[in-house]
Amino acid sequence: MNRKRETAETMASRQKSISVSEFFSKNRHLLGFDNPRKALLTATKEAVDNALDACEEAGILPDIIVKLTDLDNERFQMSVEDNGPGIVKRQIPNIFGKLLYGSKFHRLKMSRGQQGIGISAAGMYGLITTGRPVHITSRTSTKAAAHHFQLQIDTKKNKPEIIKDEEQEWEKDHGTKVEIVLQAVFKRGRQSVDEYLRQTAIANPHVSLYYYAPDGTEHFYERSTEELPPETNEIKPHPRGVELGIMQGMLKTTKAKRLSSFLQSEFSRVSHNVAMTICEKANLSYKAYPIRISRGDVEQLMEGIAQTKILNPPTNCVAPIGEEQLLKGLSSVVNGEFCTSSTRPPAVYRGNPFIIEAALIYGGDNAADSPARLLRFANRVPLLYQQGGCCSFNAATSVNWRNYGVQQPRGSLPTGPITIVVHMASVWVPFTSESKEAIARYPVIQEEVTKALQECGRKLKIHLSRKKKEAESLRKSNYIETYIPHIGYGLRDLIDLKEDDVNNVVSTLADLLTRRPS
Amino acid sequence: MNRKRETAETMASRQKSISVSEFFSKNRHLLGFDNPRKALLTATKEAVDNALDACEEAGILPDIIVKLTDLDNERFQMSVEDNGPGIVKRQIPNIFGKLLYGSKFHRLKMSRGQQGIGISAAGMYGLITTGRPVHITSRTSTKAAAHHFQLQIDTKKNKPEIIKDEEQEWEKDHGTKVEIVLQAVFKRGRQSVDEYLRQTAIANPHVSLYYYAPDGTEHFYERSTEELPPETNEIKPHPRGVELGIMQGMLKTTKAKRLSSFLQSEFSRVSHNVAMTICEKANLSYKAYPIRISRGDVEQLMEGIAQTKILNPPTNCVAPIGEEQLLKGLSSVVNGEFCTSSTRPPAVYRGNPFIIEAALIYGGDNAADSPARLLRFANRVPLLYQQGGCCSFNAATSVNWRNYGVQQPRGSLPTGPITIVVHMASVWVPFTSESKEAIARYPVIQEEVTKALQECGRKLKIHLSRKKKEAESLRKSNYIETYIPHIGYGLRDLIDLKEDDVNNVVSTLADLLTRRPS
Repeated sequence: MNRKRETAETMASRQKSISVSEFFSKNRHLLGFDNPRKALLTATKEAVDNALDACEEAGILPDIIVKLTDLDNERFQMSVEDNGPGIVKRQIPNIFGKLLYGSKFHRLKMSRGQQGIGISAAGMYGLITTGRPVHITSRTSTKAAAHHFQLQIDTKKNKPEIIKDEEQEWEKDHGTKVEIVLQAVFKRGRQSVDEYLRQTAIANPHVSLYYYAPDGTEHFYERSTEELPPETNEIKPHPRGVELGIMQGMLKTTKAKRLSSFLQSEFSRVSHNVAMTICEKANLSYKAYPIRISRGDVEQLMEGIAQTKILNPPTNCVAPIGEEQLLKGLSSVVNGEFCTSSTRPPAVYRGNPFIIEAALIYGGDNAADSPARLLRFANRVPLLYQQGGCCSFNAATSVNWRNYGVQQPRGSLPTGPITIVVHMASVWVPFTSESKEAIARYPVIQEEVTKALQECGRKLKIHLSRKKKEAESLRKSNYIETYIPHIGYGLRDLIDLKEDDVNNVVSTLADLLTRRPS
Repeated sequence: MNRKRETAETMASRQKSISVSEFFSKNRHLLGFDNPRKALLTATKEAVDNALDACEEAGILPDIIVKLTDLDNERFQMSVEDNGPGIVKRQIPNIFGKLLYGSKFHRLKMSRGQQGIGISAAGMYGLITTGRPVHITSRTSTKAAAHHFQLQIDTKKNKPEIIKDEEQEWEKDHGTKVEIVLQAVFKRGRQSVDEYLRQTAIANPHVSLYYYAPDGTEHFYERSTEELPPETNEIKPHPRGVELGIMQGMLKTTKAKRLSSFLQSEFSRVSHNVAMTICEKANLSYKAYPIRISRGDVEQLMEGIAQTKILNPPTNCVAPIGEEQLLKGLSSVVNGEFCTSSTRPPAVYRGNPFIIEAALIYGGDNAADSPARLLRFANRVPLLYQQGGCCSFNAATSVNWRNYGVQQPRGSLPTGPITIVVHMASVWVPFTSESKEAIARYPVIQEEVTKALQECGRKLKIHLSRKKKEAESLRKSNYIETYIPHIGYGLRDLIDLKEDDVNNVVSTLADLLTRRPS
């Protein structure tokens, strides 16, 4: 056997660290950069999502300008500009030139971004495919000058490289503008930038969106409300959502000096009384010094938590779009004869609160013999890919729509002029991949979506059966109406009525008829 | 509006790095730790895959011992022991206690592992769910003592924490043993550890596998060949598979002093002549100093590469299982009446060589009215999850199986007692997620799978039609056979034959009949 034998030593010489940028640059399809068309969508989406998050956190009504320019040869410049609070100078390089850097990962608060990967990944993709650095312009107030950066990511080290860093004149008082040149393909359709922006406008009626498409067309989505979404609170983890190993880590790093104060300060829904009960049930002293608690004690602590009655997590940390806003947003885009929506009460998966809301439009441009259209949103962000792998699709196909008077092939979406909307709002949306295209199938989430859709279905059924009854009445009354004059003529001939009496009888009968159905 | 306004400054105070371990600990479903049942499979799989890789690289016929012990209360101890080359002491903590650390990411070579995530993620999952550290015992030769480590990952820093580190007596001359205690559920079935090991034995007939299941049952898969898989070479990237930004990075870090020698030393299939042609077509001097090449020049270089004839990547870097081995492995598990396989010539996606092989078994325990069973492998590793998202499933359902004489519901797998096997061997398998459960849908990969399956289908058709013909002949001959004696009696009665003559005629006719179908 002519085989060069490796040994533990020769292997060891090759074992080394892999930077997270290298990892994702080689596996970029995990981030939504599978192909040039999707890359354009993903890059735009990451930039717009960040812009909206920043504006809302600062309490500013968002004005977003999206501009895509075709530079020929499968290259596009993507530019996204907002009127947000801006980014302080020292953080710009890290935010745009380092994967896994951000403010949203370490907290439990409803926001669009959560990973600290998206926008720097978009910049990295641009760099890999075109060699061009990312351009960022940002200004935090009229008192400060605007900063302009040109950055590229050093993938071997996952660190930003600053190519240019200068002050710049900018007509904006505050805001941020990101420009990325990337290999891309522009195509309209269901998985396009156009569609993403259209759906963003539906789920965010408080946003003004100016869109300059690469073919020269322009689109302006004007805000339909001046009201920002209700502010949501950051929450602490719920004791029941924390696993043993995580608990162990928290005990090691807490500043609390007693077990009872640790429980009260690090978790939500743990009052003094609850903390004391947990310690008692865990058979641990409430005075125990957190850092000294052994693994065995942690097991007891977990048991104590399991045995103590604790309120569900607070729910003022998640905000649905709201029935009125959602239907308003939808009606501006889909023109249906019937519209309904349903918002579920807050629920909890793995300690994370969430709310499901659903809407249904009947009528509009979806053909009568094609499957219903499903619009999916997570924390107000449209999800355009991987529908088949999404919890909401699963729920929508598992509902028995035939119960509500519509056709449905087995295991599929219902058929007809139907648009279904599902929105999940949560402090942490469990996506099936880093590209955030589909919601993972947690049974409790799927159940909530199913219930919301069933409620919409029941209302649809009422609408459809009323419609059917009305159509039936109309058919009958049309039928009778045709014969009323003949009754008049018949009476005239039989009992010699005068023309006036005939008219009188006819109009009385017609009058009775129209009164009947009401 | 009672909104606490965030500013650029308050936001900046929260922006910080996220460690890759924190990221994956919060998103552990991305790594295959979605639920306790899958966690047991994933952890075992990562350990076994590593063991096989190590043995093969060292030219050792693998003896693997897998032992799962039920510790009650949804806790299991997983133990995987191999007779591989062992791991040098200084590398053990990093390999088992740090995500994104390994020897396989930075090279293009066919292996089971590629990311440097799997086994440390399994340890992290164990730690999070049970608080127990990973135990590793390893020995590199009889001259050295065995080392025993107890490790846990510091997720905040993505660094190993050594709990225990000691020399130990071990009866093995060389090898490695990993033990992880984790929250898990043991269930048999199609997505179980049992099934993974069974399929591993099919695709790796050179492996001896001892399996101790948690319920006390034991299973021994004996090797059916003493021959290791052919060794495959590590290759350099192909010039056509490298993008502009990557090329730029390579130019910056190369040790070559001239563009022409850079091209020759860093890429496969670039001879002196090819390098000179590329420089010429790129309008760049072959003497140009790589580090000084500007972005504009890189664009020209890419153009030069595009315009130069370059051989496809070498293919001695990928090795199929081979028809004989594959059918041998299969026949020991599936008991079919007909078996065929097809190995495609090597192909290339994004510069990465790969080979597709497929096999088909007709008959066996798959019910006649249920969909065919699809066994998927990537670099000899069975893939048990996410079948619907896998390129091979897509190919298998897109083949028109009705052409080959079997039933097939639209858009589905064929129906019948059919087992289909698809194996992709490549220097870099493009998985759809970090958990490596499905192959991404590159059109060229799907095409190769389709062609391999079509070839199997054609052979199946020949088998089925021969079988049908034989059944038909048999039916006819049975039919005629019934009447032959009556012909004898008829003749006797008509022309007064003797009993001997009758027997003679009958046997001649019977003889003729049996000769006919051949």
